[in-house]
Amino acid sequence: MDAASSAGLAADLLGVFFFAVSGSLLAARKGFDLVGSLLLASLASLGGGVVRDLIIGVPPAAFTAPVYLVPPLLATVLVYFVLSGVERVKRVLVVFDAGGLALFCITGTVKALEAGLNPFSAALLGVTTAVGGGLLRDVVANEIPQLFDPRDIYALPAMLGAAVVTVLYVTSTFTLVTGMLAASLVFSLRVLGWRYGWRAPLAARVQRDRR
Amino acid sequence: MDAASSAGLAADLLGVFFFAVSGSLLAARKGFDLVGSLLLASLASLGGGVVRDLIIGVPPAAFTAPVYLVPPLLATVLVYFVLSGVERVKRVLVVFDAGGLALFCITGTVKALEAGLNPFSAALLGVTTAVGGGLLRDVVANEIPQLFDPRDIYALPAMLGAAVVTVLYVTSTFTLVTGMLAASLVFSLRVLGWRYGWRAPLAARVQRDRR
Amino acid sequence: MDAASSAGLAADLLGVFFFAVSGSLLAARKGFDLVGSLLLASLASLGGGVVRDLIIGVPPAAFTAPVYLVPPLLATVLVYFVLSGVERVKRVLVVFDAGGLALFCITGTVKALEAGLNPFSAALLGVTTAVGGGLLRDVVANEIPQLFDPRDIYALPAMLGAAVVTVLYVTSTFTLVTGMLAASLVFSLRVLGWRYGWRAPLAARVQRDRR
Repeated sequence: MDAASSAGLAADLLGVFFFAVSGSLLAARKGFDLVGSLLLASLASLGGGVVRDLIIGVPPAAFTAPVYLVPPLLATVLVYFVLSGVERVKRVLVVFDAGGLALFCITGTVKALEAGLNPFSAALLGVTTAVGGGLLRDVVANEIPQLFDPRDIYALPAMLGAAVVTVLYVTSTFTLVTGMLAASLVFSLRVLGWRYGWRAPLAARVQRDRR
Repeated sequence: MDAASSAGLAADLLGVFFFAVSGSLLAARKGFDLVGSLLLASLASLGGGVVRDLIIGVPPAAFTAPVYLVPPLLATVLVYFVLSGVERVKRVLVVFDAGGLALFCITGTVKALEAGLNPFSAALLGVTTAVGGGLLRDVVANEIPQLFDPRDIYALPAMLGAAVVTVLYVTSTFTLVTGMLAASLVFSLRVLGWRYGWRAPLAARVQRDRR
Repeated sequence: MDAASSAGLAADLLGVFFFAVSGSLLAARKGFDLVGSLLLASLASLGGGVVRDLIIGVPPAAFTAPVYLVPPLLATVLVYFVLSGVERVKRVLVVFDAGGLALFCITGTVKALEAGLNPFSAALLGVTTAVGGGLLRDVVANEIPQLFDPRDIYALPAMLGAAVVTVLYVTSTFTLVTGMLAASLVFSLRVLGWRYGWRAPLAARVQRDRR
């Protein structure tokens, strides 16, 4: 394994860990037990990547490299012993979710480009990877997905990040440094957007009754 | 690309567009923002086809042909500028959903048959394609899926359409004309069934308490 | 087809039937119609296996062998004519769900091992197969998944079963008899756990407000 793919694996595992913590935190908030915490952490953190790998057409990394099972286990333990005691669980959840989003839109787009997808499709798959795990997490926990919360710009930073990485890759300027800058940008926009309530226009220009 | 596959692509894209509008309309009804509208339109319109292609074992069209990204974009814009102002959003949503259902049960079944699936499996995959996108749309929006609404016969027309197309294909009488007739039949049955409240028998012959 | 794979197919089809009954029972409880019952039975019983086969990278059995369509049909009819009249639908649902869980965690793990997955990944895929169909069933029916009910130890028996089968397989002691013993163990633990309210520790050691 060369340096580039080591860095890619490290970024991927870190993203998995961030989403796993978001899953365990949601499990804690919903009153699930430790087994449910481990399962929700696994789904949130590995689900997006499994979908990505199935679409690319390679065996899902989560089911070929057992190392991917470590982050959900760590996250479950961490939330149980440490994070469930913190005030403002929601705030912590958003920060971890933003970390996963930032890393996955980079690694997902790069994996898609390396697999030979065209730039548009690669960016789309990067966004899918980034939002997919969190979407699965919220759906199976029977919550309205954060993704669709109009008080927030959840997906926009991931779309921007996927676009930036695609341009970097196509212009051969994607490096560890530029990739980390892109991830930092996505993370910052996501957290700032949540903190200051940046909003996108609503889907309906005219608000009628909801029937 | 010959005439037959051009017609197939056109029908597929039109079905994608119909489901995309249904997704954006639901986003408008639920108070999502424009980004949520685009994402729900994409999931509703491309989700069923991605599942179909993964099951057949080919790269999902939505991730190989960027043209599939156009209908969700168009639908989001259309709903924002035009359709969110209409009265009776539900009625419009049902009509677009029916259009997508009608086209997808045809194109899904044909793709499965062309990929060499046996007739039963091909019809099943056609139905899966037709109902899959709408199911994903309703599930992620945290609604009870239209598919399971007992005041309606949602899936029956798609099952009939998939069966008819399978028979047409196996007997070598599937053409653009017979295919469009089958789609019209599915569309009409779906819309009439909704308009006049056609119902299927309930799953439980004996109604007990719901516990 | 030799004796071993015949037994494997029989166990798989029986698991499909059990989950299909659980799907139709839930449809009956939710007031769905017969078509919704058939669809929910199909999703609950075939969904886990389709995900398993996609991850392994083989064509999903449900879409290559039409025999897999028989159990959902049987289950829909059985629930309509017989089981919807029974008292305590929930009790019956748990028993059938446990039967599916027990058989699928065995057959899923074995299929994964036979496909060459490493033992950890095979056990993970066995658990995914076992809990996947029930998770899909509950999610599309807009219920909080049984999987996450903290009054229960839903997934633990499946995890144990997958681990036991992996050890049996790796040590070449997996036979029809030991396999059935493992399935019986999973089934018994699941039903006893439900009956006597065995619980796992909650995900949050410190219970704060749920915000």
